[in-house]
Amino acid sequence: MRELTIDLGDRSYPIYIGEGLLDQIASYFDKHGLSKKSPLFIVSDSNVAPRFLPKVQQKLEEGGYRVVTAVVPSGESSKSLAQFEQLITEALQAGLDRNSAVIALGGGVVGDLAGYVAAAYMRGIRFIQIPTTILAHDSSVGGKVAVNHPLAKNIIGAFHQPEMVFYDLATLQTLPEREVKSGLAEVVKHGLIWDTEFVDWIDAHADKLLALDAEALGYALYKGCSVKAAVVSQDERENDLRAILNLGHTIGHALEAVANYNELQHGEAISIGMVGSAILGVELGAPQEVYEVTKRVLQRCGLPVRLPEHLDTDEIMEAMMHDKKFKEGHMVYIIPTAIGKVEINKAMSAERVRAVVEQLKKEG
Amino acid sequence: MRELTIDLGDRSYPIYIGEGLLDQIASYFDKHGLSKKSPLFIVSDSNVAPRFLPKVQQKLEEGGYRVVTAVVPSGESSKSLAQFEQLITEALQAGLDRNSAVIALGGGVVGDLAGYVAAAYMRGIRFIQIPTTILAHDSSVGGKVAVNHPLAKNIIGAFHQPEMVFYDLATLQTLPEREVKSGLAEVVKHGLIWDTEFVDWIDAHADKLLALDAEALGYALYKGCSVKAAVVSQDERENDLRAILNLGHTIGHALEAVANYNELQHGEAISIGMVGSAILGVELGAPQEVYEVTKRVLQRCGLPVRLPEHLDTDEIMEAMMHDKKFKEGHMVYIIPTAIGKVEINKAMSAERVRAVVEQLKKEG
Repeated sequence: MRELTIDLGDRSYPIYIGEGLLDQIASYFDKHGLSKKSPLFIVSDSNVAPRFLPKVQQKLEEGGYRVVTAVVPSGESSKSLAQFEQLITEALQAGLDRNSAVIALGGGVVGDLAGYVAAAYMRGIRFIQIPTTILAHDSSVGGKVAVNHPLAKNIIGAFHQPEMVFYDLATLQTLPEREVKSGLAEVVKHGLIWDTEFVDWIDAHADKLLALDAEALGYALYKGCSVKAAVVSQDERENDLRAILNLGHTIGHALEAVANYNELQHGEAISIGMVGSAILGVELGAPQEVYEVTKRVLQRCGLPVRLPEHLDTDEIMEAMMHDKKFKEGHMVYIIPTAIGKVEINKAMSAERVRAVVEQLKKEG
Repeated sequence: MRELTIDLGDRSYPIYIGEGLLDQIASYFDKHGLSKKSPLFIVSDSNVAPRFLPKVQQKLEEGGYRVVTAVVPSGESSKSLAQFEQLITEALQAGLDRNSAVIALGGGVVGDLAGYVAAAYMRGIRFIQIPTTILAHDSSVGGKVAVNHPLAKNIIGAFHQPEMVFYDLATLQTLPEREVKSGLAEVVKHGLIWDTEFVDWIDAHADKLLALDAEALGYALYKGCSVKAAVVSQDERENDLRAILNLGHTIGHALEAVANYNELQHGEAISIGMVGSAILGVELGAPQEVYEVTKRVLQRCGLPVRLPEHLDTDEIMEAMMHDKKFKEGHMVYIIPTAIGKVEINKAMSAERVRAVVEQLKKEG
């Protein structure tokens, strides 16, 4: 079992990573002093709930906890204000009080949605993450929670740190192949922004990761969480440094939006976005290998590097204008200067970005 | 001009109180470094907007600021998730970004609603309060923002501290008499929980306050804000001490809910609630004068002390069970032990509260 502490002063919390952790969940809850009188509210989705919810519920009830559950439809469309309201209603009806906790059992969508319920309910109650995807290693560090608005992703949200993150590698064994690959995109990102040796390690172990080798996966998640933790600890509210975590996300979020949040998975969209950032980086003076290594590692992880041609360039540019990273008329871009190193460019011209979007349609 | 600093470390902010302050609003915004490139989003209501919105907008635009506005229907019913969503949509359409600020121009409803928009939009942007009621002196300190759910008041919200609070006493001159009285209820509360001399001062100056004497009003608001600031500075997240600000609110919120948020104003409801707390206090050993002074000062401020008989006792008790102050099966009550002094009672029996609710129907 690996343990990692996210250091945020009095909001610090641990991430536990290991195989079979769910069997001991009640003892971890005891250790964290969760209330056995106030109900725990487990939120999961229609994909994950049949596989893991009965076990989590049973283990907690055996440990003396009161459990209520809610299952939302799987997929990004559940990250809506309507679904948020429905969960608040269920929480009220179940009698959740200030000593209750909301538990997210699932991937990033469930984490963001349930986390925002925890952030908003009675102005904030305790929150615990049980991520069941690789991708969620990213959203499980940093306390960002949110729902989407039809006009923009993650626009309604909060910073709400979890009490703990509980990563049972056994839950990853049934992940569909496409989601495994998509999840690796954020792992690669954490290497690209911070740690050239980790990028080399991924390059060498991509096959093991794709085969869901528990040792390799545990190490990759630990490293990915560590990079994110190092960044977040230095800049909890995204004033500056934290922005580097957005490598590939400005283009990526726009692609997701224009593809109606269903054609492209998040990891696929930011994979294409990271190739775009690498092209911009090389144009601005980074060595050519930044582009080559970025593209190679992503492809080794089975990720797309080409932007689907039928996505309209005008719509993509328009979607970027609504992004939170668009500040006072300038586009803010995270640009690699070397493998493992990026800089924040606050004056990227829209013309240059448009040219890269066109170029990404010809990658292969 | 009186100035008061709410001391919350790096979230500290000033409250400016004075007559005619709105004329200089642009220079205050300059002083606080607000952006002239990113739009400011002024939220007001249908009562307040016709009187003050054109002036605020004009003064800011003259100062070089970009202003967009939204006007919501006046009244508690605007503190809804639907209205919140509508404002988020308007903010997105107006191109608000991370350097924008949301400005609440109005009473507590507008402050809570606009404040929650500021807290949630892009996970939190700057927030400025321009209170136009006496009651709002209370909600302008402490950072509590929220909307209501049909099942419970203020259940969806956040702690989001304003950048500054801007109290122009001139805006209070057109307040309807009933709102003046209602606002004084929170002023009285701040005396009752903290400052026996301030209670005596209110007792002696109630007539001047009701006549909207600017000097008396400025002092009362300054003192009320000071008491709240002292409490909040010591306990920002309502772990313990801050709960004393809820004097009269457990019963008060229940009355508002059972009266469908329209028959009783907030201040009227907590006035009745504070008399209830005084009765409980005397029953538990406080001197008889706690009840007598509480009742006399509230009545001198023109506030009701009798619970309307047609409000059903069962419904009132049921509404209290949904209150955030109901923790793990016990009722938490704020109980006076003397004038200017209260204690937190965490084991109040529902039977005793029910008897007091019945008794309040016979007050006069």
